[in-house]
Amino acid sequence: MLVVMDVSATPEQIEQVVNVIEAKGCTARPIPGGDRVSIGVLNNAGPLDASLFIGLPGVKDAVPITKPYKLVSRETKADDTLIQVGDVVIGNGNLTLMAGPCAIESEDQALTIAGHVKKSGAHMFRGGAFKPRTSPYTFQGLGEAGLKILAKVRETTGMPVVTEVMDTQAFDLVEHYADMLQIGTRNMQNFSLLKRAGESFRPILLKRGLAATIEEWLMAAEYIMAQGNHQVVLCERGVRTFVHHSRNTLDLSAVPVVRKESHLPIIVDPSHAAGRRDQVLPLSRAAVAANAHGLMVEVHHQPEKALSDGAQSLYPEQFDILCRQVKAIFNVSGGQEPF
Amino acid sequence: MLVVMDVSATPEQIEQVVNVIEAKGCTARPIPGGDRVSIGVLNNAGPLDASLFIGLPGVKDAVPITKPYKLVSRETKADDTLIQVGDVVIGNGNLTLMAGPCAIESEDQALTIAGHVKKSGAHMFRGGAFKPRTSPYTFQGLGEAGLKILAKVRETTGMPVVTEVMDTQAFDLVEHYADMLQIGTRNMQNFSLLKRAGESFRPILLKRGLAATIEEWLMAAEYIMAQGNHQVVLCERGVRTFVHHSRNTLDLSAVPVVRKESHLPIIVDPSHAAGRRDQVLPLSRAAVAANAHGLMVEVHHQPEKALSDGAQSLYPEQFDILCRQVKAIFNVSGGQEPF
Amino acid sequence: MLVVMDVSATPEQIEQVVNVIEAKGCTARPIPGGDRVSIGVLNNAGPLDASLFIGLPGVKDAVPITKPYKLVSRETKADDTLIQVGDVVIGNGNLTLMAGPCAIESEDQALTIAGHVKKSGAHMFRGGAFKPRTSPYTFQGLGEAGLKILAKVRETTGMPVVTEVMDTQAFDLVEHYADMLQIGTRNMQNFSLLKRAGESFRPILLKRGLAATIEEWLMAAEYIMAQGNHQVVLCERGVRTFVHHSRNTLDLSAVPVVRKESHLPIIVDPSHAAGRRDQVLPLSRAAVAANAHGLMVEVHHQPEKALSDGAQSLYPEQFDILCRQVKAIFNVSGGQEPF
Amino acid sequence: MLVVMDVSATPEQIEQVVNVIEAKGCTARPIPGGDRVSIGVLNNAGPLDASLFIGLPGVKDAVPITKPYKLVSRETKADDTLIQVGDVVIGNGNLTLMAGPCAIESEDQALTIAGHVKKSGAHMFRGGAFKPRTSPYTFQGLGEAGLKILAKVRETTGMPVVTEVMDTQAFDLVEHYADMLQIGTRNMQNFSLLKRAGESFRPILLKRGLAATIEEWLMAAEYIMAQGNHQVVLCERGVRTFVHHSRNTLDLSAVPVVRKESHLPIIVDPSHAAGRRDQVLPLSRAAVAANAHGLMVEVHHQPEKALSDGAQSLYPEQFDILCRQVKAIFNVSGGQEPF
Repeated sequence: MLVVMDVSATPEQIEQVVNVIEAKGCTARPIPGGDRVSIGVLNNAGPLDASLFIGLPGVKDAVPITKPYKLVSRETKADDTLIQVGDVVIGNGNLTLMAGPCAIESEDQALTIAGHVKKSGAHMFRGGAFKPRTSPYTFQGLGEAGLKILAKVRETTGMPVVTEVMDTQAFDLVEHYADMLQIGTRNMQNFSLLKRAGESFRPILLKRGLAATIEEWLMAAEYIMAQGNHQVVLCERGVRTFVHHSRNTLDLSAVPVVRKESHLPIIVDPSHAAGRRDQVLPLSRAAVAANAHGLMVEVHHQPEKALSDGAQSLYPEQFDILCRQVKAIFNVSGGQEPF
Repeated sequence: MLVVMDVSATPEQIEQVVNVIEAKGCTARPIPGGDRVSIGVLNNAGPLDASLFIGLPGVKDAVPITKPYKLVSRETKADDTLIQVGDVVIGNGNLTLMAGPCAIESEDQALTIAGHVKKSGAHMFRGGAFKPRTSPYTFQGLGEAGLKILAKVRETTGMPVVTEVMDTQAFDLVEHYADMLQIGTRNMQNFSLLKRAGESFRPILLKRGLAATIEEWLMAAEYIMAQGNHQVVLCERGVRTFVHHSRNTLDLSAVPVVRKESHLPIIVDPSHAAGRRDQVLPLSRAAVAANAHGLMVEVHHQPEKALSDGAQSLYPEQFDILCRQVKAIFNVSGGQEPF
Repeated sequence: MLVVMDVSATPEQIEQVVNVIEAKGCTARPIPGGDRVSIGVLNNAGPLDASLFIGLPGVKDAVPITKPYKLVSRETKADDTLIQVGDVVIGNGNLTLMAGPCAIESEDQALTIAGHVKKSGAHMFRGGAFKPRTSPYTFQGLGEAGLKILAKVRETTGMPVVTEVMDTQAFDLVEHYADMLQIGTRNMQNFSLLKRAGESFRPILLKRGLAATIEEWLMAAEYIMAQGNHQVVLCERGVRTFVHHSRNTLDLSAVPVVRKESHLPIIVDPSHAAGRRDQVLPLSRAAVAANAHGLMVEVHHQPEKALSDGAQSLYPEQFDILCRQVKAIFNVSGGQEPF
Repeated sequence: MLVVMDVSATPEQIEQVVNVIEAKGCTARPIPGGDRVSIGVLNNAGPLDASLFIGLPGVKDAVPITKPYKLVSRETKADDTLIQVGDVVIGNGNLTLMAGPCAIESEDQALTIAGHVKKSGAHMFRGGAFKPRTSPYTFQGLGEAGLKILAKVRETTGMPVVTEVMDTQAFDLVEHYADMLQIGTRNMQNFSLLKRAGESFRPILLKRGLAATIEEWLMAAEYIMAQGNHQVVLCERGVRTFVHHSRNTLDLSAVPVVRKESHLPIIVDPSHAAGRRDQVLPLSRAAVAANAHGLMVEVHHQPEKALSDGAQSLYPEQFDILCRQVKAIFNVSGGQEPF
């Protein structure tokens, strides 16, 4: 933290800032400049709140210098973290493809789609049993019946399954059936849910919030890790901007930034970012070219009959093309470090 | 819903869209235009998903025409809803002032601040017992001890109290102590929490999500009302934009829009929007001038020692000025209808 | 500027940063911290570019500390600047109301509207002769004929007139006819136009760009002032966000921030922010309550026949109500300083 | 355009809307729905303004259905447009690489960098002679001297050159020296400049505005084409969002959307999107994987001494790696159609 004083700040005002810093157990280091004084805050144990200083008389600004996260940081752990889900390993050196319908609708639907995506090269199966829906009047998922279908898919195809958990009440249940638990974009800062996830023995797929900075996203992962669960995979899925030609704006610069800041793997969900089928293939190729560790893609054999998000679901034959293209790109660019 | 076809759409493609519409139990009305056909969807019972059509061959776009909410809509209930909290009535004709610290830190702190804000004219007391914090390493609130202090404040001052409930586990507890329960910005689409709030006998203060459209916000209120609890107050608290001179950007056009679309009352929280003390007074005046039904303002007698959000907390004497100014503005502009 | 080094930065890397700083003629002051070194840059004559440091080996971040503007800054000139336009004075202590149609369409139209708004209390008349339009196929303004009508309005009513200048070619012409020249939101960073405006003898109304930070906006004003023209009025008119219930999102926190950072007056244009008539009155009241020095409002006696922007134009009788309400608010809150 | 009426709209109000439509020479087609009437507007010659209807009594909304652009639209011209610049052809089937420094600083600097990038595989050379700068106190470019250096680069290396033109005054000059003229992001809606570009015999590189929708961007291209110059290349360079880990947010979904909506080629500028060197390579790969027709990349042999934008400039050896990687990706994914 650097506290920047007004040009006209008095010695008493500087003194007051120093006192506040020292009262927090930190060291204050005033730095006289050309036209104003700034005061560095050193030796702070945890993150300091700029609000301690902004609003004090004579203070112009308070600028955070260090990052508030620890466990997620590459400065704490330099090596890439690899996450094991069943037989699948997510992380550097691998391209992990997760695919399946938005929602589990029936055993028949799930098994049909699972058969298709496995054949095309998917490593994991996705499908929602508990669905967060904007409207209380639309399909909310099959619940436990959906989880049982997911277990059946795993049994039949051998693919580990990932599904969303929406609240702490259903956590034990979802943890029982699924191989990996997803925390959705709307729950990225549902801190009670994050804490419960931190006590889980399952790996967690943590989606980025709709308007979350990377710092907030990594802090959400920090919540999980601070409880003891270090198996976290991050998932970029687009952020909300003024743009309306896609449902959200996929922020691919998040991939190199997260890979630089953190040792956790990061995958990309192009389906929710795009919100429409005809952007999913180019965005999938782009995500792999940007060095994502994997993709999560929605696929449905009858998207026009899907109970949710049909518009963004690929047909199985489209997913087949996607797999071939992204593997080819991964072969020529995967694992490359940015400069 | 209006489905817009490509200029080059074939009769078969139009036919397919009609079939999808009719399979949903709706009526399809093709509208031949100058250069392309559009197809109106009539008699839909609930909200239709554009995704049913986007991605079908020959379809250029699918444009929602009607709003997906019902219970919150002024088209369903024309008269303003008044919400009773203790002796306080929130809604048209009144200006309700809620004030207090970000977090309850001690009985002494709470009672001191409550005494100040009551004297200045506050009608309700606010204070957090369970605090959603970005970092797992910062103060998370006193929990039940904080709720007991809130009850003490009500007893001592007569002011009803409002506090945040973060999850369903603590719901019964918070419901027991507080007069009004707040659902915070990060939980606006925590649907499990919304459903529980819908079963509560307490009025709910529903904050707008950081990147929520008004439609999504009203749909969140619809979740609560659909469960039977019709006592919902909406709270605008700023949205996330590219702007960084304030923590969030207060969206005051939300006030006239919500008042036109819905019969529910809407208040404004200038403290969280601004994130810094020196913007709170002008934004408070602006919110009242824009016809908000009330304000929720953070006040602390020792903000530089506050355990959270000190930078945006007013000193009691500043809140006193605020009360006088906003009441004067309410007297000259309050209750005015926009054109 | 504070250059923050990696935890693992080597002495050689720190040395290289120091060399870059000194090569720019500045003083480097390394600040050893708990876990990393930061390097303060002192005695820089003008704004330094973070890009000098970001990307150097061992550098984690470069944080600007001081603002890049000088002439617009209140640190340079503490007293409020008052701007004289004809007999009207814009600035502290006054509420200046500018009103008129989006575009000048005919002498009859202009004089009719001017008569109405003057009677209601407007101090200045606005109207476009050169219109920036998104589509090349829509009405582009009357050009010089429009400017002549504006001059006629001034003659007839005594109100000074303000109109947009879109390019340097037409500058002399617009400067000849108008009392104040507006630089529109799309041209806020048209630096050639800003430089020409800096050589003008007329006061300039500088609208904020659609996605401009306050710093960029003040730097645009700095361009004008750096050429010698110190008569600049700033105009907040909404910024682009994800929100779509209004055309833009009016950022009223800009008012206290600009008033604190700069000595220049700031007015608000609620019409372009809202884009629809039914939000103009509440936003106008809010702007005045937030301490804007004035308003610029679109008024048309036949908005449904207007050649541009009819949806946001008030009827004369609505503007009459607006004037009475904002003056009442100004009387109870105007000129108040934020804390 | 579809005009949606209130549920409670009266027959007189519907009649008034019909009258407004017919007064514009269009056909009104009322569509009675389940609970409200909508009115389709047919046979409109050009774009209609929603503002004609919003604000009329009984009108709830006015929804544009057709796009306002013509010449840029693939519905007008189905085949991809190829743009010839010197010997280089930009458009489908080719990957065009443009590279060079942000600003031309000296003949030596330009020729050195040009030699490097040509060797690595660049097809065109970029470099600014007139520089739009946020601050009036920073380097503004060499002007005509810079243009002469660009001509020297073309002579020496055979690469066509592209450079920015900032205003109409300098247009003839820039047109004389450069092979392709760039209109920068801040000038995307500088309509006077667009019109002049429309009269040019040179191809135009039109950058997307910082907060421009795709519709606004295509309308800017329409301005150029409407004057007779059909040689337009679009350039995505990131948009402004709440994100601050990159300077702007690269919107790669713009690539498939523009390719579907328009016949014009689209390239990507990862350097200005990222604003920092370490994101340029991953974003370049991603852009090519998303099917962009080319890249424009900043390269400098001594970026720490660059007079502008050094932080985002690649070292020549980094650009060499970039060229090899993006060509490999183009070979496996280029020219692929999205679904």
